[in-house]
Amino acid sequence: MIRTLTSPRNPALKEVRALQAKKVRRERRLFVAEGEDLLDAARAAGVTPRAVFGDADRLGPADHRLADLPEATAVYLVPGDILAAASTLAAPPRVLAVLPQPGPWGFADVDFPPDPAAFLAGVGDPGNVGTLVRSAAALGVGWLALAPGSADPYHPRAVRAAMGSTFSLPVLSGVRVEDLATRGEMRTVAAAAEGGRPPWEVDLTGPLMLVLGSEREGLGDLGGRLGPSEIVTIPQSDGAESLNVAAAGAALFSEMRRQRLSAR
Amino acid sequence: MIRTLTSPRNPALKEVRALQAKKVRRERRLFVAEGEDLLDAARAAGVTPRAVFGDADRLGPADHRLADLPEATAVYLVPGDILAAASTLAAPPRVLAVLPQPGPWGFADVDFPPDPAAFLAGVGDPGNVGTLVRSAAALGVGWLALAPGSADPYHPRAVRAAMGSTFSLPVLSGVRVEDLATRGEMRTVAAAAEGGRPPWEVDLTGPLMLVLGSEREGLGDLGGRLGPSEIVTIPQSDGAESLNVAAAGAALFSEMRRQRLSAR
Repeated sequence: MIRTLTSPRNPALKEVRALQAKKVRRERRLFVAEGEDLLDAARAAGVTPRAVFGDADRLGPADHRLADLPEATAVYLVPGDILAAASTLAAPPRVLAVLPQPGPWGFADVDFPPDPAAFLAGVGDPGNVGTLVRSAAALGVGWLALAPGSADPYHPRAVRAAMGSTFSLPVLSGVRVEDLATRGEMRTVAAAAEGGRPPWEVDLTGPLMLVLGSEREGLGDLGGRLGPSEIVTIPQSDGAESLNVAAAGAALFSEMRRQRLSAR
Repeated sequence: MIRTLTSPRNPALKEVRALQAKKVRRERRLFVAEGEDLLDAARAAGVTPRAVFGDADRLGPADHRLADLPEATAVYLVPGDILAAASTLAAPPRVLAVLPQPGPWGFADVDFPPDPAAFLAGVGDPGNVGTLVRSAAALGVGWLALAPGSADPYHPRAVRAAMGSTFSLPVLSGVRVEDLATRGEMRTVAAAAEGGRPPWEVDLTGPLMLVLGSEREGLGDLGGRLGPSEIVTIPQSDGAESLNVAAAGAALFSEMRRQRLSAR
Protein backbone atom coordinates (compact mmCIF):
# COMPACT_ATOMS: atom_id res chain seq x y z
CA MET A 1 0.00 0.00 0.00
CA ILE A 2 1.31 3.42 -0.94
CA ARG A 3 0.58 6.26 1.43
CA THR A 4 0.45 9.89 0.41
CA LEU A 5 2.28 12.36 2.64
CA THR A 6 1.67 16.07 2.43
CA SER A 7 3.29 17.40 5.60
CA PRO A 8 7.05 17.79 6.06
CA ARG A 9 6.38 17.14 9.75
CA ASN A 10 5.36 13.54 9.09
CA PRO A 11 7.53 11.29 11.31
CA ALA A 12 8.76 9.21 8.35
CA LEU A 13 10.08 12.32 6.58
CA LYS A 14 11.50 13.63 9.82
CA GLU A 15 13.50 10.44 10.07
CA VAL A 16 14.97 10.97 6.60
CA ARG A 17 16.18 14.41 7.61
CA ALA A 18 17.42 13.17 10.99
CA LEU A 19 19.52 10.56 9.18
CA GLN A 20 21.66 13.33 7.72
CA ALA A 21 23.41 13.26 11.12
CA LYS A 22 26.08 10.60 11.58
CA LYS A 23 25.07 10.06 15.22
CA VAL A 24 21.50 9.22 14.24
CA ARG A 25 22.67 6.96 11.41
CA ARG A 26 24.91 5.10 13.82
CA GLU A 27 22.31 4.73 16.58
CA ARG A 28 19.56 3.50 14.29
CA ARG A 29 21.86 1.56 11.94
CA LEU A 30 20.05 3.12 8.99
CA PHE A 31 21.08 5.38 6.13
CA VAL A 32 19.48 7.16 3.17
CA ALA A 33 20.11 6.25 -0.45
CA GLU A 34 19.22 9.05 -2.85
CA GLY A 35 18.20 8.15 -6.37
CA GLU A 36 16.91 5.15 -8.21
CA ASP A 37 20.35 3.78 -9.16
CA LEU A 38 21.17 3.27 -5.50
CA LEU A 39 17.73 1.85 -4.75
CA ASP A 40 18.17 -0.59 -7.64
CA ALA A 41 21.61 -1.58 -6.35
CA ALA A 42 20.20 -2.17 -2.87
CA ARG A 43 17.40 -4.33 -4.25
CA ALA A 44 19.85 -6.27 -6.42
CA ALA A 45 21.90 -6.97 -3.29
CA GLY A 46 18.83 -8.37 -1.55
CA VAL A 47 18.40 -5.43 0.82
CA THR A 48 14.84 -4.76 2.00
CA PRO A 49 14.33 -1.00 2.20
CA ARG A 50 12.70 0.17 5.39
CA ALA A 51 10.97 2.99 3.52
CA VAL A 52 10.87 4.41 -0.01
CA PHE A 53 9.71 7.94 -0.83
CA GLY A 54 8.69 8.84 -4.37
CA ASP A 55 8.26 12.32 -5.84
CA ALA A 56 4.50 12.59 -6.47
CA ASP A 57 5.14 15.25 -9.11
CA ARG A 58 7.24 12.87 -11.20
CA LEU A 59 6.13 9.34 -10.29
CA GLY A 60 2.71 7.71 -10.10
CA PRO A 61 1.71 4.97 -7.65
CA ALA A 62 1.97 2.34 -10.39
CA ASP A 63 5.60 3.21 -11.17
CA HIS A 64 7.76 0.11 -10.79
CA ARG A 65 10.11 1.91 -8.42
CA LEU A 66 7.24 2.15 -5.95
CA ALA A 67 5.01 -0.78 -6.86
CA ASP A 68 7.53 -3.64 -6.94
CA LEU A 69 8.80 -3.33 -3.37
CA PRO A 70 8.77 -5.94 -0.61
CA GLU A 71 5.77 -6.13 1.72
CA ALA A 72 7.89 -4.93 4.64
CA THR A 73 8.83 -1.67 2.92
CA ALA A 74 6.76 1.42 3.76
CA VAL A 75 6.10 3.32 0.53
CA TYR A 76 5.18 7.00 0.35
CA LEU A 77 4.31 9.50 -2.36
CA VAL A 78 5.44 12.99 -1.39
CA PRO A 79 5.07 16.37 -3.14
CA GLY A 80 8.30 17.27 -4.97
CA ASP A 81 9.16 20.32 -2.91
CA ILE A 82 8.76 18.45 0.37
CA LEU A 83 10.86 15.54 -0.87
CA ALA A 84 13.49 17.98 -2.14
CA ALA A 85 13.76 19.47 1.34
CA ALA A 86 14.63 16.02 2.68
CA SER A 87 17.33 15.47 0.04
CA THR A 88 20.97 16.53 0.36
CA LEU A 89 21.30 16.98 -3.41
CA ALA A 90 21.04 20.22 -5.36
CA ALA A 91 19.11 18.30 -8.02
CA PRO A 92 16.79 16.18 -5.87
CA PRO A 93 16.18 12.62 -7.04
CA ARG A 94 12.83 11.04 -7.81
CA VAL A 95 13.21 8.48 -5.01
CA LEU A 96 14.77 8.40 -1.56
CA ALA A 97 15.13 5.16 0.35
CA VAL A 98 15.81 4.51 4.02
CA LEU A 99 17.93 1.37 4.17
CA PRO A 100 19.40 -0.79 6.93
CA GLN A 101 23.19 -0.47 7.17
CA PRO A 102 24.88 -3.69 6.01
CA GLY A 103 26.62 -5.63 8.72
CA PRO A 104 27.64 -4.65 11.33
CA TRP A 105 30.83 -6.13 9.98
CA GLY A 106 33.29 -7.38 12.54
CA PHE A 107 36.63 -9.15 12.50
CA ALA A 108 34.80 -12.47 12.51
CA ASP A 109 33.44 -11.68 9.05
CA VAL A 110 36.74 -11.08 7.26
CA ASP A 111 39.89 -12.99 6.44
CA PHE A 112 43.18 -12.92 8.42
CA PRO A 113 45.80 -12.33 7.34
CA PRO A 114 43.97 -10.09 4.86
CA ASP A 115 44.41 -11.15 1.26
CA PRO A 116 44.27 -8.23 0.64
CA ALA A 117 42.45 -5.58 2.64
CA ALA A 118 42.99 -1.85 3.09
CA PHE A 119 43.22 0.29 6.21
CA LEU A 120 42.14 3.92 5.79
CA ALA A 121 43.76 6.22 8.34
CA GLY A 122 42.39 9.72 8.56
CA VAL A 123 40.45 9.86 5.31
CA GLY A 124 38.00 12.52 6.42
CA ASP A 125 36.19 13.33 3.20
CA PRO A 126 33.06 11.19 2.66
CA GLY A 127 33.45 11.34 -1.12
CA ASN A 128 36.96 9.91 -0.87
CA VAL A 129 35.82 7.12 1.47
CA GLY A 130 32.99 6.25 -0.92
CA THR A 131 35.26 6.29 -3.96
CA LEU A 132 37.72 4.01 -2.15
CA VAL A 133 34.89 1.60 -1.29
CA ARG A 134 33.97 1.47 -4.98
CA SER A 135 37.57 1.08 -6.19
CA ALA A 136 38.35 -1.57 -3.56
CA ALA A 137 35.33 -3.65 -4.56
CA ALA A 138 36.18 -3.32 -8.26
CA LEU A 139 39.87 -4.13 -7.94
CA GLY A 140 39.88 -7.09 -5.60
CA VAL A 141 40.45 -5.58 -2.15
CA GLY A 142 38.40 -7.87 0.08
CA TRP A 143 37.47 -5.49 2.88
CA LEU A 144 38.21 -2.09 4.37
CA ALA A 145 39.01 -1.02 7.91
CA LEU A 146 38.43 2.63 8.79
CA ALA A 147 40.43 4.23 11.58
CA PRO A 148 38.59 6.40 14.14
CA GLY A 149 38.11 9.87 12.69
CA SER A 150 37.46 8.61 9.17
CA ALA A 151 34.40 9.85 7.35
CA ASP A 152 31.25 7.78 7.80
CA PRO A 153 30.76 5.37 4.87
CA TYR A 154 27.00 5.98 5.24
CA HIS A 155 27.29 9.74 4.75
CA PRO A 156 25.15 10.69 1.72
CA ARG A 157 28.19 11.65 -0.36
CA ALA A 158 30.02 8.46 0.54
CA VAL A 159 26.99 6.38 -0.40
CA ARG A 160 26.71 8.13 -3.76
CA ALA A 161 30.43 7.79 -4.52
CA ALA A 162 30.45 4.09 -3.59
CA MET A 163 27.53 3.34 -5.91
CA GLY A 164 26.27 -0.15 -5.17
CA SER A 165 29.54 -1.26 -3.56
CA THR A 166 28.20 -0.12 -0.17
CA PHE A 167 26.10 -3.29 -0.21
CA SER A 168 28.86 -5.76 -1.05
CA LEU A 169 32.18 -4.70 0.51
CA PRO A 170 32.65 -5.34 4.23
CA VAL A 171 33.69 -2.09 5.92
CA LEU A 172 34.79 -2.18 9.56
CA SER A 173 34.55 1.21 11.26
CA GLY A 174 36.43 2.58 14.26
CA VAL A 175 39.34 0.17 13.89
CA ARG A 176 42.53 1.09 15.76
CA VAL A 177 45.98 -0.20 14.91
CA GLU A 178 45.89 -1.98 18.29
CA ASP A 179 42.74 -3.82 17.25
CA LEU A 180 44.42 -4.99 14.09
CA ALA A 181 47.57 -6.01 15.95
CA THR A 182 45.60 -8.43 18.14
CA ARG A 183 44.60 -10.33 15.01
CA GLY A 184 48.15 -11.49 14.40
CA GLU A 185 51.04 -10.36 12.29
CA MET A 186 50.35 -9.12 8.78
CA ARG A 187 52.51 -7.62 6.06
CA THR A 188 51.64 -3.97 5.43
CA VAL A 189 52.30 -1.73 2.46
CA ALA A 190 51.58 1.92 3.19
CA ALA A 191 51.19 4.61 0.56
CA ALA A 192 52.93 7.88 1.34
CA ALA A 193 53.13 11.12 -0.62
CA GLU A 194 56.91 10.90 -0.68
CA GLY A 195 59.88 8.81 0.33
CA GLY A 196 58.63 5.34 -0.60
CA ARG A 197 59.57 2.92 -3.37
CA PRO A 198 57.51 2.82 -6.56
CA PRO A 199 54.65 0.34 -5.98
CA TRP A 200 55.73 -1.69 -9.02
CA GLU A 201 59.04 -2.43 -7.27
CA VAL A 202 57.27 -3.88 -4.23
CA ASP A 203 55.58 -7.28 -4.07
CA LEU A 204 51.83 -6.67 -3.82
CA THR A 205 50.81 -10.32 -4.13
CA GLY A 206 49.87 -12.60 -1.27
CA PRO A 207 48.33 -11.67 2.09
CA LEU A 208 48.67 -7.95 2.59
CA MET A 209 47.20 -4.95 4.39
CA LEU A 210 47.38 -1.80 2.29
CA VAL A 211 47.43 1.42 4.29
CA LEU A 212 46.19 4.72 2.91
CA GLY A 213 46.32 7.96 4.85
CA SER A 214 45.04 11.42 4.22
CA GLU A 215 47.38 13.73 2.38
CA ARG A 216 47.40 16.23 5.22
CA GLU A 217 48.08 14.10 8.22
CA GLY A 218 50.16 11.38 6.67
CA LEU A 219 50.25 7.88 7.97
CA GLY A 220 51.77 8.20 11.39
CA ASP A 221 53.59 5.15 12.63
CA LEU A 222 51.20 2.48 11.48
CA GLY A 223 53.39 0.15 9.54
CA GLY A 224 55.92 -1.47 11.85
CA ARG A 225 53.37 -2.03 14.60
CA LEU A 226 51.58 -4.70 12.60
CA GLY A 227 54.46 -6.65 11.08
CA PRO A 228 56.88 -6.39 8.14
CA SER A 229 56.11 -3.11 6.41
CA GLU A 230 57.07 -1.18 3.33
CA ILE A 231 56.33 2.35 2.16
CA VAL A 232 55.35 3.00 -1.45
CA THR A 233 55.08 6.29 -3.29
CA ILE A 234 53.74 6.72 -6.79
CA PRO A 235 56.52 8.72 -8.48
CA GLN A 236 55.21 12.14 -9.41
CA SER A 237 56.25 14.97 -11.68
CA ASP A 238 58.55 17.55 -10.12
CA GLY A 239 56.70 20.27 -8.29
CA ALA A 240 53.27 18.71 -8.74
CA GLU A 241 50.66 18.57 -6.01
CA SER A 242 50.32 15.16 -4.42
CA LEU A 243 47.60 12.82 -5.61
CA ASN A 244 44.20 12.86 -3.97
CA VAL A 245 43.96 9.90 -1.56
CA ALA A 246 41.19 8.24 -3.58
CA ALA A 247 43.23 8.62 -6.79
CA ALA A 248 46.32 7.22 -5.08
CA GLY A 249 44.23 4.33 -3.78
CA ALA A 250 42.86 3.52 -7.24
CA ALA A 251 46.37 3.56 -8.69
CA LEU A 252 47.72 1.33 -5.91
CA PHE A 253 44.82 -1.13 -6.06
CA SER A 254 45.20 -1.31 -9.84
CA GLU A 255 48.95 -1.98 -9.59
CA MET A 256 48.19 -4.71 -7.07
CA ARG A 257 45.68 -6.20 -9.47
CA ARG A 258 48.26 -6.10 -12.28
CA GLN A 259 50.76 -8.01 -10.19
CA ARG A 260 48.22 -10.58 -9.03
CA LEU A 261 46.83 -11.25 -12.50
CA SER A 262 50.34 -11.39 -14.01
CA ALA A 263 51.53 -13.84 -11.33
CA ARG A 264 48.91 -16.43 -12.20
CA MET B 1 44.90 49.38 1.13
CA ILE B 2 42.30 47.11 2.67
CA ARG B 3 38.69 48.16 2.35
CA THR B 4 35.96 47.07 4.74
CA LEU B 5 32.70 45.90 3.19
CA THR B 6 29.53 45.59 5.21
CA SER B 7 26.86 45.22 2.53
CA PRO B 8 26.21 42.03 0.58
CA ARG B 9 25.09 44.32 -2.25
CA ASN B 10 28.60 45.68 -2.77
CA PRO B 11 29.52 45.16 -6.46
CA ALA B 12 32.71 43.27 -5.63
CA LEU B 13 30.77 40.71 -3.58
CA LYS B 14 28.06 40.57 -6.21
CA GLU B 15 30.74 39.55 -8.69
CA VAL B 16 31.86 36.67 -6.47
CA ARG B 17 28.33 35.33 -6.37
CA ALA B 18 27.83 35.92 -10.09
CA LEU B 19 30.96 33.83 -10.79
CA GLN B 20 29.12 30.75 -9.49
CA ALA B 21 27.58 30.68 -12.99
CA LYS B 22 29.67 29.06 -15.73
CA LYS B 23 28.48 31.60 -18.28
CA VAL B 24 29.73 34.51 -16.20
CA ARG B 25 33.05 32.75 -15.51
CA ARG B 26 33.54 32.17 -19.21
CA GLU B 27 32.61 35.71 -20.29
CA ARG B 28 34.81 37.43 -17.72
CA ARG B 29 37.57 34.81 -17.78
CA LEU B 30 37.61 34.82 -14.01
CA PHE B 31 36.94 32.25 -11.32
CA VAL B 32 36.75 32.02 -7.53
CA ALA B 33 39.24 30.14 -5.39
CA GLU B 34 37.90 29.32 -1.94
CA GLY B 35 40.35 28.92 0.91
CA GLU B 36 43.89 29.92 1.68
CA ASP B 37 45.50 26.77 0.22
CA LEU B 38 44.22 27.69 -3.22
CA LEU B 39 45.18 31.33 -2.77
CA ASP B 40 48.68 30.24 -1.78
CA ALA B 41 48.91 27.95 -4.81
CA ALA B 42 47.83 30.79 -7.10
CA ARG B 43 50.41 33.12 -5.60
CA ALA B 44 53.12 30.45 -5.89
CA ALA B 45 52.24 30.11 -9.58
CA GLY B 46 52.71 33.85 -10.08
CA VAL B 47 49.01 34.61 -10.47
CA THR B 48 47.92 38.11 -9.43
CA PRO B 49 44.50 37.86 -7.78
CA ARG B 50 42.02 40.41 -8.98
CA ALA B 51 40.43 40.55 -5.53
CA VAL B 52 40.82 38.84 -2.15
CA PHE B 53 38.11 38.81 0.52
CA GLY B 54 38.99 38.01 4.13
CA ASP B 55 36.60 37.04 6.93
CA ALA B 56 36.71 40.03 9.31
CA ASP B 57 35.58 37.80 12.17
CA ARG B 58 38.63 35.55 11.80
CA LEU B 59 41.36 37.65 10.15
CA GLY B 60 42.77 41.11 10.94
CA PRO B 61 44.05 43.57 8.35
CA ALA B 62 47.66 42.73 9.25
CA ASP B 63 47.19 39.02 8.51
CA HIS B 64 49.71 37.92 5.90
CA ARG B 65 46.97 36.47 3.70
CA LEU B 66 45.65 39.99 3.24
CA ALA B 67 48.70 42.19 3.76
CA ASP B 68 51.22 40.55 1.43
CA LEU B 69 49.26 40.85 -1.80
CA PRO B 70 50.28 42.60 -5.03
CA GLU B 71 49.40 46.27 -5.47
CA ALA B 72 46.97 45.39 -8.25
CA THR B 73 44.87 43.15 -6.01
CA ALA B 74 41.77 44.67 -4.38
CA VAL B 75 41.61 43.51 -0.77
CA TYR B 76 38.47 43.48 1.35
CA LEU B 77 37.54 42.58 4.89
CA VAL B 78 33.98 41.27 5.08
CA PRO B 79 31.80 40.17 8.03
CA GLY B 80 31.83 36.38 8.30
CA ASP B 81 28.14 35.84 7.59
CA ILE B 82 28.28 37.96 4.44
CA LEU B 83 31.40 36.19 3.19
CA ALA B 84 29.78 32.83 3.97
CA ALA B 85 26.84 33.77 1.77
CA ALA B 86 29.24 34.28 -1.15
CA SER B 87 30.92 30.89 -0.59
CA THR B 88 29.78 27.60 -2.10
CA LEU B 89 31.14 25.63 0.85
CA ALA B 90 29.19 24.34 3.82
CA ALA B 91 32.15 25.32 6.02
CA PRO B 92 33.06 28.72 4.55
CA PRO B 93 36.76 29.48 4.25
CA ARG B 94 38.59 32.46 5.76
CA VAL B 95 39.52 33.84 2.35
CA LEU B 96 37.94 33.93 -1.09
CA ALA B 97 39.91 35.10 -4.12
CA VAL B 98 38.78 36.18 -7.56
CA LEU B 99 41.44 35.02 -10.01
CA PRO B 100 42.03 35.33 -13.74
CA GLN B 101 41.60 32.04 -15.58
CA PRO B 102 44.94 30.72 -16.83
CA GLY B 103 45.37 30.75 -20.57
CA PRO B 104 43.24 30.74 -22.67
CA TRP B 105 45.11 27.64 -23.72
CA GLY B 106 45.02 26.78 -27.39
CA PHE B 107 46.53 24.20 -29.66
CA ALA B 108 49.50 26.51 -30.21
CA ASP B 109 50.44 26.08 -26.55
CA VAL B 110 50.68 22.29 -26.47
CA ASP B 111 52.71 19.54 -28.11
CA PHE B 112 51.66 17.46 -31.15
CA PRO B 113 51.60 14.58 -31.30
CA PRO B 114 50.80 14.71 -27.59
CA ASP B 115 53.41 13.00 -25.43
CA PRO B 116 51.14 12.27 -23.66
CA ALA B 117 47.89 14.17 -23.26
CA ALA B 118 44.37 13.12 -22.29
CA PHE B 119 41.02 13.81 -23.90
CA LEU B 120 38.02 13.81 -21.55
CA ALA B 121 34.78 12.99 -23.32
CA GLY B 122 31.59 13.58 -21.38
CA VAL B 123 33.01 13.89 -17.89
CA GLY B 124 30.18 15.96 -16.49
CA ASP B 125 31.00 16.03 -12.80
CA PRO B 126 33.20 19.00 -11.82
CA GLY B 127 34.84 17.05 -9.00
CA ASN B 128 35.91 14.35 -11.44
CA VAL B 129 37.31 16.91 -13.89
CA GLY B 130 39.26 18.58 -11.09
CA THR B 131 40.60 15.29 -9.76
CA LEU B 132 41.71 14.34 -13.28
CA VAL B 133 43.50 17.70 -13.64
CA ARG B 134 45.35 16.99 -10.40
CA SER B 135 46.20 13.38 -11.30
CA ALA B 136 47.31 14.36 -14.82
CA ALA B 137 49.67 17.03 -13.51
CA ALA B 138 51.09 14.64 -10.90
CA LEU B 139 51.59 11.69 -13.22
CA GLY B 140 53.12 13.28 -16.29
CA VAL B 141 50.16 13.91 -18.58
CA GLY B 142 51.17 17.15 -20.32
CA TRP B 143 47.78 18.67 -21.06
CA LEU B 144 44.06 17.93 -21.12
CA ALA B 145 41.45 18.49 -23.81
CA LEU B 146 37.82 18.63 -22.69
CA ALA B 147 35.06 17.71 -25.12
CA PRO B 148 32.00 19.97 -25.33
CA GLY B 149 29.61 19.07 -22.53
CA SER B 150 32.38 18.41 -20.02
CA ALA B 151 32.19 20.09 -16.65
CA ASP B 152 33.85 23.49 -16.39
CA PRO B 153 37.37 23.18 -14.89
CA TYR B 154 36.73 26.51 -13.14
CA HIS B 155 33.61 25.27 -11.33
CA PRO B 156 34.22 25.70 -7.58
CA ARG B 157 34.30 21.94 -6.98
CA ALA B 158 36.67 21.37 -9.90
CA VAL B 159 39.01 24.07 -8.61
CA ARG B 160 39.02 22.53 -5.14
CA ALA B 161 39.62 19.02 -6.43
CA ALA B 162 42.45 20.14 -8.72
CA MET B 163 44.25 21.91 -5.88
CA GLY B 164 47.01 24.06 -7.34
CA SER B 165 47.20 22.07 -10.59
CA THR B 166 44.62 24.43 -12.09
CA PHE B 167 47.47 26.92 -12.41
CA SER B 168 50.00 24.66 -14.09
CA LEU B 169 48.29 22.17 -16.39
CA PRO B 170 47.09 23.45 -19.80
CA VAL B 171 43.41 22.58 -20.22
CA LEU B 172 41.77 23.16 -23.60
CA SER B 173 37.99 23.38 -23.38
CA GLY B 174 35.34 22.73 -26.01
CA VAL B 175 37.60 20.47 -28.10
CA ARG B 176 35.85 18.28 -30.66
CA VAL B 177 37.33 15.15 -32.16
CA GLU B 178 37.33 17.00 -35.49
CA ASP B 179 39.49 19.74 -33.98
CA LEU B 180 41.99 17.15 -32.81
CA ALA B 181 41.96 15.36 -36.15
CA THR B 182 43.11 18.51 -37.95
CA ARG B 183 46.28 18.48 -35.86
CA GLY B 184 47.53 15.33 -37.52
CA GLU B 185 47.43 11.64 -36.75
CA MET B 186 48.00 10.52 -33.21
CA ARG B 187 47.92 7.16 -31.47
CA THR B 188 44.99 6.90 -29.04
CA VAL B 189 44.38 4.62 -26.09
CA ALA B 190 40.83 4.82 -24.80
CA ALA B 191 39.70 3.49 -21.43
CA ALA B 192 36.40 1.60 -21.48
CA ALA B 193 34.47 -0.05 -18.67
CA GLU B 194 34.61 -3.38 -20.49
CA GLY B 195 35.94 -5.15 -23.54
CA GLY B 196 39.46 -3.71 -23.70
CA ARG B 197 42.88 -5.22 -23.02
CA PRO B 198 44.50 -4.72 -19.60
CA PRO B 199 46.47 -1.45 -19.76
CA TRP B 200 49.66 -3.27 -18.78
CA GLU B 201 49.44 -5.30 -21.99
CA VAL B 202 49.34 -2.15 -24.14
CA ASP B 203 52.30 0.10 -24.89
CA LEU B 204 51.71 3.39 -23.08
CA THR B 205 55.10 4.90 -23.88
CA GLY B 206 55.79 7.44 -26.62
CA PRO B 207 53.42 9.99 -28.13
CA LEU B 208 49.89 9.15 -27.12
CA MET B 209 46.42 10.58 -26.57
CA LEU B 210 44.62 8.90 -23.70
CA VAL B 211 40.84 9.04 -23.92
CA LEU B 212 38.58 8.87 -20.88
CA GLY B 213 34.81 8.89 -21.08
CA SER B 214 32.08 9.04 -18.53
CA GLU B 215 30.89 5.74 -17.23
CA ARG B 216 27.35 6.38 -18.37
CA GLU B 217 27.76 7.49 -21.92
CA GLY B 218 30.84 5.57 -22.86
CA LEU B 219 33.35 6.76 -25.37
CA GLY B 220 31.46 6.78 -28.62
CA ASP B 221 33.57 6.31 -31.71
CA LEU B 222 36.51 8.52 -30.82
CA GLY B 223 39.45 6.24 -31.33
CA GLY B 224 39.75 5.33 -34.98
CA ARG B 225 38.96 8.84 -36.15
CA LEU B 226 42.29 10.14 -34.90
CA GLY B 227 44.69 7.36 -35.87
CA PRO B 228 45.76 3.95 -34.61
CA SER B 229 43.70 3.20 -31.53
CA GLU B 230 43.41 0.68 -28.76
CA ILE B 231 40.87 0.10 -26.02
CA VAL B 232 41.98 -0.70 -22.50
CA THR B 233 39.93 -1.93 -19.55
CA ILE B 234 41.22 -2.29 -16.02
CA PRO B 235 40.19 -5.86 -15.17
CA GLN B 236 37.63 -5.81 -12.40
CA SER B 237 36.18 -8.27 -9.94
CA ASP B 238 33.14 -10.18 -11.13
CA GLY B 239 29.90 -8.34 -10.54
CA ALA B 240 31.54 -5.16 -9.24
CA GLU B 241 30.42 -1.67 -10.20
CA SER B 242 32.69 -0.03 -12.74
CA LEU B 243 35.37 2.36 -11.50
CA ASN B 244 34.63 6.04 -11.17
CA VAL B 245 36.13 7.87 -14.17
CA ALA B 246 38.60 9.81 -12.01
CA ALA B 247 39.72 6.60 -10.30
CA ALA B 248 40.11 4.87 -13.67
CA GLY B 249 42.10 7.86 -14.92
CA ALA B 250 44.44 7.78 -11.94
CA ALA B 251 45.03 4.05 -12.43
CA LEU B 252 45.66 4.49 -16.16
CA PHE B 253 47.97 7.49 -15.73
CA SER B 254 49.89 5.60 -13.05
CA GLU B 255 50.31 2.54 -15.28
CA MET B 256 51.55 4.83 -18.04
CA ARG B 257 54.05 6.34 -15.62
CA ARG B 258 55.23 2.87 -14.60
CA GLN B 259 55.88 1.92 -18.21
CA ARG B 260 57.66 5.18 -18.99
CA LEU B 261 59.90 5.08 -15.94
CA SER B 262 60.66 1.39 -16.47
CA ALA B 263 61.55 1.95 -20.14
CA ARG B 264 64.28 4.47 -19.38
